Amino acid sequence: MFKTQKDFTYLMPAHFGGGKFDPEAKLTQKSTALLIRYETDQKLLENYIPEGFELSAPEIQVAFNKFTEINWMQGGHYNLIDVSAPVRFNGKNEQLDGNYSLVVWENNTAPILGGREQTGIPKIFADIEDLHVLKPHYATTASYAGNTFLNMNFEATGELTGDEFEQAKAQSSSLNTIGWRYIPKIGAPGAELSQFILYPQGMEMETAQIGNARLKWTEMTPMQNPVQFHIINSLAALPIKRIINALFSEGSATLRAFGARILK
Amino acid sequence: MFKTQKDFTYLMPAHFGGGKFDPEAKLTQKSTALLIRYETDQKLLENYIPEGFELSAPEIQVAFNKFTEINWMQGGHYNLIDVSAPVRFNGKNEQLDGNYSLVVWENNTAPILGGREQTGIPKIFADIEDLHVLKPHYATTASYAGNTFLNMNFEATGELTGDEFEQAKAQSSSLNTIGWRYIPKIGAPGAELSQFILYPQGMEMETAQIGNARLKWTEMTPMQNPVQFHIINSLAALPIKRIINALFSEGSATLRAFGARILK
Amino acid sequence: MFKTQKDFTYLMPAHFGGGKFDPEAKLTQKSTALLIRYETDQKLLENYIPEGFELSAPEIQVAFNKFTEINWMQGGHYNLIDVSAPVRFNGKNEQLDGNYSLVVWENNTAPILGGREQTGIPKIFADIEDLHVLKPHYATTASYAGNTFLNMNFEATGELTGDEFEQAKAQSSSLNTIGWRYIPKIGAPGAELSQFILYPQGMEMETAQIGNARLKWTEMTPMQNPVQFHIINSLAALPIKRIINALFSEGSATLRAFGARILK
Amino acid sequence: MFKTQKDFTYLMPAHFGGGKFDPEAKLTQKSTALLIRYETDQKLLENYIPEGFELSAPEIQVAFNKFTEINWMQGGHYNLIDVSAPVRFNGKNEQLDGNYSLVVWENNTAPILGGREQTGIPKIFADIEDLHVLKPHYATTASYAGNTFLNMNFEATGELTGDEFEQAKAQSSSLNTIGWRYIPKIGAPGAELSQFILYPQGMEMETAQIGNARLKWTEMTPMQNPVQFHIINSLAALPIKRIINALFSEGSATLRAFGARILK
Repeated sequence: MFKTQKDFTYLMPAHFGGGKFDPEAKLTQKSTALLIRYETDQKLLENYIPEGFELSAPEIQVAFNKFTEINWMQGGHYNLIDVSAPVRFNGKNEQLDGNYSLVVWENNTAPILGGREQTGIPKIFADIEDLHVLKPHYATTASYAGNTFLNMNFEATGELTGDEFEQAKAQSSSLNTIGWRYIPKIGAPGAELSQFILYPQGMEMETAQIGNARLKWTEMTPMQNPVQFHIINSLAALPIKRIINALFSEGSATLRAFGARILK
Repeated sequence: MFKTQKDFTYLMPAHFGGGKFDPEAKLTQKSTALLIRYETDQKLLENYIPEGFELSAPEIQVAFNKFTEINWMQGGHYNLIDVSAPVRFNGKNEQLDGNYSLVVWENNTAPILGGREQTGIPKIFADIEDLHVLKPHYATTASYAGNTFLNMNFEATGELTGDEFEQAKAQSSSLNTIGWRYIPKIGAPGAELSQFILYPQGMEMETAQIGNARLKWTEMTPMQNPVQFHIINSLAALPIKRIINALFSEGSATLRAFGARILK
Repeated sequence: MFKTQKDFTYLMPAHFGGGKFDPEAKLTQKSTALLIRYETDQKLLENYIPEGFELSAPEIQVAFNKFTEINWMQGGHYNLIDVSAPVRFNGKNEQLDGNYSLVVWENNTAPILGGREQTGIPKIFADIEDLHVLKPHYATTASYAGNTFLNMNFEATGELTGDEFEQAKAQSSSLNTIGWRYIPKIGAPGAELSQFILYPQGMEMETAQIGNARLKWTEMTPMQNPVQFHIINSLAALPIKRIINALFSEGSATLRAFGARILK
Repeated sequence: MFKTQKDFTYLMPAHFGGGKFDPEAKLTQKSTALLIRYETDQKLLENYIPEGFELSAPEIQVAFNKFTEINWMQGGHYNLIDVSAPVRFNGKNEQLDGNYSLVVWENNTAPILGGREQTGIPKIFADIEDLHVLKPHYATTASYAGNTFLNMNFEATGELTGDEFEQAKAQSSSLNTIGWRYIPKIGAPGAELSQFILYPQGMEMETAQIGNARLKWTEMTPMQNPVQFHIINSLAALPIKRIINALFSEGSATLRAFGARILK
């Protein structure tokens, strides 16, 4: 009969075996990113920030990322769209600034499962196009069952160099990503597990370009997107007051596989 | 700021809202199923059955299902391949016969997330073809990133009628599906949550055909299927000693959305 | 060395062999169809009808079809969106009423190639969702590289019965589909081959429902849909003045594989 | 009514408009290629080489290519698997050495249609994975409807430098690709159009690595791959006697859009 091993960590299905818990294990990958940050309405955005946090600025950051040469996927690849807001966590024991993860769409289920269950990042599925690149134009599209809900367009205007590049590089090298791991009770309302999780991340930026950007959310009906329409429509209802920053960058990312911890 | 509501149930991301916990909520869908049950080696199969269960017979059931007109997906659809073994659960408080869910592949991430987090069914992703039907031949294929790991072939030899149909209908109308909900600790080995879950299911069978079947597992390298190869290779290593039963059926399925409970 | 056989017909690549030309060969398949016919502007529509035809009515018919159990695909399946207009062909030798095929999107390349090269139907690729069915609501979506360009919605209001059904059945049993087979010159402008082709088709309708329908074209930029944007934008610019007819039907279709002929 | 313009070239559907025939038009794209060349049996291979050619060597070349930043696709991308053999064309008017295109699989229908109809390259559809890269290992897979028919694996052993690189670069800079444009008669066996087409191609190689390679064809049943099984099984039956060359390279490709001509 199957028994778990004491020093192992598992994901469902556990009974086919897990992996040794190794605090030094590293996740490595190459990254091509398109990031757009915009100002929105503070009151509306706060509706989606849980108690215990305060919003640091009325801003939303939408980041497309294509990861390739991923070591834990044996060289595989996937795309994501990460939507987050800058927050301060005010816990009983600690205060911390970070990016609260509102939602992350990924076009591959494997990192979705690990991300949700191991680190509380609210990952869900979408089809996400590789960047279409007709320099200086870059574009991508996120859709679900054939229904487009997000278009991102970028026009590069210049390469970041010197101090500006060093600053962007420093900023992206260390990010406090915060997720809310929530597992429901069975047979009753409420949570069986509810934890805020800090997952430090960072990218080793190699090149970066700034530019002009457009971003368009399209509202969905329940029939078009039955399980995500409320998320998309919530985001679509937040006004895009002003694009603050738009950046295309390439580099690599190294994460500690088991580097997350519970915030208290 | 966002607050959860007391009588609601949530999935990540929780902060965009959940749904009222309604014990009477029903999940409905149409079902087209191809089921193949075969005898295998008892000792080898027991390696994947957790302590607390005993194997009722050295048998594996592989069931393809295409669900359509799914009410909670607003009329959407998906396919699955369900692999299970007949077990007896010997708990502290109860004994129960059921099908232990070894693994379920689905070609849609939405039911994967709910299935794992709400009922402990070990669902993972695969591409699963709709049935190719050239009567009396039926075939389907499961693959991951272009690499085929399962082929199912069926040749109908006759429709089930009379008592035989009534018996098959009765059997499929009530199934004790048992999953193992396992959520890992963060920053340490072992489980934060580990529960065996009973999720009673059933199908209202309308027509059924018996026939001859072939089923072929193909071993995968880590580079072909980085996160599932150990599951597939474990199943591929279990001998197919004899096909016990092969059935193609159509009907509908009604489930209580919150009808699962923890086994003790 | 490879030689073609006299009584064979071939598609590229020809050198791996073709099939015997059999005038009696039949293509069979099951069909689930959603058809929406609407009135538009005559002058605008005529821009896309070649000389030699006259428009019989300022109408466009958009038909979704899901074909399954396709014999020449060994039981496989695919979806299509067929856009046509009613025309009269005025040739040197003959006059004929039919449906001029403006464009057909299909989600499978195999029938696209045969359709273009063997019968001049202007088939191109799109992702086309299986119908989402939450009775009485039906919906589908066509997209390209994640960008939605067509939504079709239908609400059934009643089953066609009696004379009305017989009339619909008779109408769908024999259709004169007309395509324009156009193969360009190499190294020069103009056509190497330019022929109008009649391909008689028909469906054996088994059930039909009428209802209310909505249809929405979404304009595309070249970056969203580089090779089809001009087609989509042409169709999107044609006003939908009035829905004339909306029909959901199920049945089967039988075609003579080599039943097409050149119109003169 | 629609009329074609004299100096335009068209693809179906022609009535939505074509493009000006511009002999100087350039197709540009970035290329990531994995090429494996192997020795096979001369007699068997000759079965697939049409009369009028002679086989220059009993060799098959299988080349994976990922094209990105494609100008005529407005920055889009696609993957292909090109299978060819070295031949000499012995025509009435000319003799020419080149690569005869046996079959090309592509994962995007748009270049398939243009390739077939404009240049006679026998392109057909397959799902083709982006390279999985876990240096020095590279792998890709081609499949159809979930059934794997080709696996390519490469292990880089060293970068090409100096004269060796210059030689590889020179070789790839100018390739005589030869296709057979074949359009069938309608309503009768035989060809309406049958032409051998020369389409000069070339890649500007920027880096190249040599290495060890494995390539595996898997036979298909008609039910697994109804329209291509005879092609795949023909190739699978050709023995891989010896890998002659295996090369991973990156660079760009520039083609004259209308640079093809008919061989005579």
